[in-house]
Amino acid sequence: MMGDAIMAGDVYERVMDLARRRGFVWPTSEAYGAVAGFIDYGPLGAMMKRRIEDAWRGFYVVREGFYEIECPTIGQEAIYLASGHVKGFTDKMFQCPHCNEYLRADHVVEGGGRCANAAVLDEEALCRELEDLACPACDGRIGEVQVFGFSLMFQTSIGPGSQRTGYLRPETAQGIFTDFARLLRFYRDKLPFGATQIGKSYRNEISPRQGMIRLREFTQAEAEIFVHPAKKEHPNFARYSGYRMPLLGHPAQQAGTPAVEMSMAEAVASGTVANEYVAYYLALTHEFLTQVGVAPDRLRFRQHLPDERAHYACDCWDAECLSGRFGWVETVGIADRTDYDLRAHAAHSGQAFTVFIQYPEPIRRSETRVVPRMGALGPRFRGGAKQVADAIAATDPATASAPAGFTIEVDGKPIEITPDLYDVREIEVEVQGEEVMPHVIEPSYGIDRILYAVLEHSFDEEAVEGETRTVLRLSPAVAPIQVAVFPLMSRDGMDEVAMAITDELKAAGLMAEYDDSGAIGRRYRRQDEIGTPLAITVDYDTLDDGTVTLRDRDSMRQVRLSTASLAETCRALCRGRLRFDGLE
Amino acid sequence: MMGDAIMAGDVYERVMDLARRRGFVWPTSEAYGAVAGFIDYGPLGAMMKRRIEDAWRGFYVVREGFYEIECPTIGQEAIYLASGHVKGFTDKMFQCPHCNEYLRADHVVEGGGRCANAAVLDEEALCRELEDLACPACDGRIGEVQVFGFSLMFQTSIGPGSQRTGYLRPETAQGIFTDFARLLRFYRDKLPFGATQIGKSYRNEISPRQGMIRLREFTQAEAEIFVHPAKKEHPNFARYSGYRMPLLGHPAQQAGTPAVEMSMAEAVASGTVANEYVAYYLALTHEFLTQVGVAPDRLRFRQHLPDERAHYACDCWDAECLSGRFGWVETVGIADRTDYDLRAHAAHSGQAFTVFIQYPEPIRRSETRVVPRMGALGPRFRGGAKQVADAIAATDPATASAPAGFTIEVDGKPIEITPDLYDVREIEVEVQGEEVMPHVIEPSYGIDRILYAVLEHSFDEEAVEGETRTVLRLSPAVAPIQVAVFPLMSRDGMDEVAMAITDELKAAGLMAEYDDSGAIGRRYRRQDEIGTPLAITVDYDTLDDGTVTLRDRDSMRQVRLSTASLAETCRALCRGRLRFDGLE
Repeated sequence: MMGDAIMAGDVYERVMDLARRRGFVWPTSEAYGAVAGFIDYGPLGAMMKRRIEDAWRGFYVVREGFYEIECPTIGQEAIYLASGHVKGFTDKMFQCPHCNEYLRADHVVEGGGRCANAAVLDEEALCRELEDLACPACDGRIGEVQVFGFSLMFQTSIGPGSQRTGYLRPETAQGIFTDFARLLRFYRDKLPFGATQIGKSYRNEISPRQGMIRLREFTQAEAEIFVHPAKKEHPNFARYSGYRMPLLGHPAQQAGTPAVEMSMAEAVASGTVANEYVAYYLALTHEFLTQVGVAPDRLRFRQHLPDERAHYACDCWDAECLSGRFGWVETVGIADRTDYDLRAHAAHSGQAFTVFIQYPEPIRRSETRVVPRMGALGPRFRGGAKQVADAIAATDPATASAPAGFTIEVDGKPIEITPDLYDVREIEVEVQGEEVMPHVIEPSYGIDRILYAVLEHSFDEEAVEGETRTVLRLSPAVAPIQVAVFPLMSRDGMDEVAMAITDELKAAGLMAEYDDSGAIGRRYRRQDEIGTPLAITVDYDTLDDGTVTLRDRDSMRQVRLSTASLAETCRALCRGRLRFDGLE
Repeated sequence: MMGDAIMAGDVYERVMDLARRRGFVWPTSEAYGAVAGFIDYGPLGAMMKRRIEDAWRGFYVVREGFYEIECPTIGQEAIYLASGHVKGFTDKMFQCPHCNEYLRADHVVEGGGRCANAAVLDEEALCRELEDLACPACDGRIGEVQVFGFSLMFQTSIGPGSQRTGYLRPETAQGIFTDFARLLRFYRDKLPFGATQIGKSYRNEISPRQGMIRLREFTQAEAEIFVHPAKKEHPNFARYSGYRMPLLGHPAQQAGTPAVEMSMAEAVASGTVANEYVAYYLALTHEFLTQVGVAPDRLRFRQHLPDERAHYACDCWDAECLSGRFGWVETVGIADRTDYDLRAHAAHSGQAFTVFIQYPEPIRRSETRVVPRMGALGPRFRGGAKQVADAIAATDPATASAPAGFTIEVDGKPIEITPDLYDVREIEVEVQGEEVMPHVIEPSYGIDRILYAVLEHSFDEEAVEGETRTVLRLSPAVAPIQVAVFPLMSRDGMDEVAMAITDELKAAGLMAEYDDSGAIGRRYRRQDEIGTPLAITVDYDTLDDGTVTLRDRDSMRQVRLSTASLAETCRALCRGRLRFDGLE
């Protein structure tokens, strides 16, 4: 979702150049010509991505207690018929008559400045808008073209003989929905409960041109939280009720007024956010994103406009990160999807997808029932009497109250039921509880976009001693390497001491890297560029008195420390339990 | 790879029943009828799987220093044309004329007891063997059928207009090979280096019937280690040179003699294992598998037979785990693949896939060269002289030594080169080094099969107080839940203390679960069944004196401990730094 794009030079190029050069992100299978919409994470990128995923698990799996599950990426067609993806997961496309390139109609119309939200236009309107525009691929005037829907699901077939159509999943969520009954039993039949999934999802984009932002294969982290439809108060709302953050509701967007900072309690009380569950996960998302390194002043929470929101959702917000190249980029979506998904799967599969909610006390109530008179039915229908009786009992009492009786159907044949065959009576019944179809609260994170936003927001260049120092100001929680260890020279035993320190740091759970190549200054710059927060230098003094130099990436300040408590100190610094200036 | 199947009752059914019931492994998208060859990992299975993967990373990424990368699961066709998968990754299939089921020919022949290794038979031979066998699906006599190759790659197309064929990767390895040049630069152009990948791979099996053992979508953990072809001494071989384990070499298999226990140094010295690299990763694999919970007495290392081994591999071993249902199941393959993969990609892509290895000292040597005489070429070929001179210089000196000269081709036209246009001379050259195509050592792990083996090997039933106690004797390193916390009753503040302990354990990095439902005995049994090593009970005494009961899953023994050091004690027990009987 591209909003009001802010062009701030070529920060994307600079970030991606660093990412390619240093092993964060590479074009995939380059030797054969990279394919748009796919990337490789190199050694540092894959490490950083895993750290972001683990930070997410810290929130959702460990703290919230929503266990992770892992479903296949290939799903059978029935799932996506039910979810609506087979029919509705399409983009509108046209082919340029000059260069034959396939292009996404709404993006070309938006790019041509004709319309801010062309996704809502129908095919005819798109054709009209396109006619006078230039093709972004060849610059030719587009003219009269046909716009048609293109399915965004990758299709394949499972097993021989084209027996079964399979799709690569467009989202991880459907695996959680289809496991609903199993999950419900796992959580011992009680609401609320939640499950999460982190994994690959796929979207066969028509012509992706935005690097890491628009991928055909990407990683999602999704939570599906199943709640009682009438109980949308979050049991731990107190954790975030006072959490303040700027919210850009849809009335503000329509009025052109800025985001308003408020607490989550205020957001719910004022009706800005639909309920405590949505507000809770908005705040959690803000906390998570800023913790992994999204700059708070380049992060906003924007509510979907009424024409943008899915028809079934009762509230939906996007967390958007500001990029110098791409403007506001959607990185997380948080929605109250009501019972849309479960209802769809129930309808298509014939399974229940409900939870039996027991009342605190059984409720006694009187109900009008149609009661068959077995004494009269027996002689008349003989062996078929039971079947007729069941059909009578299942009849709507209002229908049965007609003076002439009514007609039932048994084995396809109509049977007249006269009033002498039954009574319509008030009966006292005891009801233990009810079957409830839960609502789903869904926070859905795009891990690749978050990783890119963190790279861009932490990218910094500063003049140091007449040179440009490039620094990734990554939080130690996501930096691929946490501590670099340098011997001043690789001789006289300094190399061995430095290697032993590296091993000790690794044993303490820190990712440490030994580097003995080039001048110390160059080694510092190399580590600054990949965001390593701490560097240790082993020198001749180390051999004498067992102390080393510890250097802080951001301030470039150095302290002299004993090797004895080194691993513990580095751990405390990386876990945020100690500040570097506390060492000085 | 099924070997001499040992039938030991229905342990598979018992393990899978537990796995389904308790949320380890579920049939996928059950509401629509599960598809063979796909599974869902439920909450506990996904957690256990992640722990196995993390243990693997502890060996390969942290200790060995082979960074992990992450490539897409969809790859363009060129990759798999080069790797040989488009042509050769097939299974031989036939269709039963009675029930129309597609079946894998070699498996049916092996299942019919006609042949132990039917994979080596050709299509004709398979047809002959099949003729008199019964169809395993409908039991009809198969008779005369056609056997043909079926591609095991899932195919899809990328983007609109069927522009590009894509395949779901059959192994993670190819992503590492195609990133070779980038990885080489990342590792600063030096051998040896390695890279790893953990992720989904796909194999469109014809008719998988073996639950978790034969999956169409599975998780691999692979390491590709690039080494100098002439230097197969492992730099850290000392770590495992004394490591002893039983090896079943191919001569022993052919002679029908049992595996021989030997140290890795002996294995290399005796020629049982081809080189130190292969031996090192055999030992590492043994250490890893037993650490995550494969029973040492149900684990063997079997060398491929000469007709089983890929033609290019110079040595290949499988780590096989014994299953009561499936016999010896291949879970890991360790191969020296020589330069087969890099050579294939070099040939198809036109890129180098080599490493420049600098000699310690430049080598001076004399070389015979064909030296063009520019003075003679200039007047004769004018503007074309440079091109002709280059072609002359590139000519084999042996060819150029012919008395009548030779013929070159420039822009498709033949040109006679007479001896007056060049000299053949000995020239002294200084050679700095050479381009070397590395060999690849590949340990390749099937994570799903390892997980299944660990479940089966840790599954135990014992009689306790007249009842059957089912226990998963999982190592704390892979148990999904590490500590269960029970309040004796959920009142009088015991529940709050138990919840606080749960939070404290989580903060200490342990997966803890609070459970207050049912009798204490039943809660213990529930945790035993999912392999939770430790359980803590908070009772009335806790409220008085701050002590709790800590119970050991395997011995069922209990000790009374202070809550003060509880988290630290549990950590130490789970990390293996402390034994339970040391507390008593």
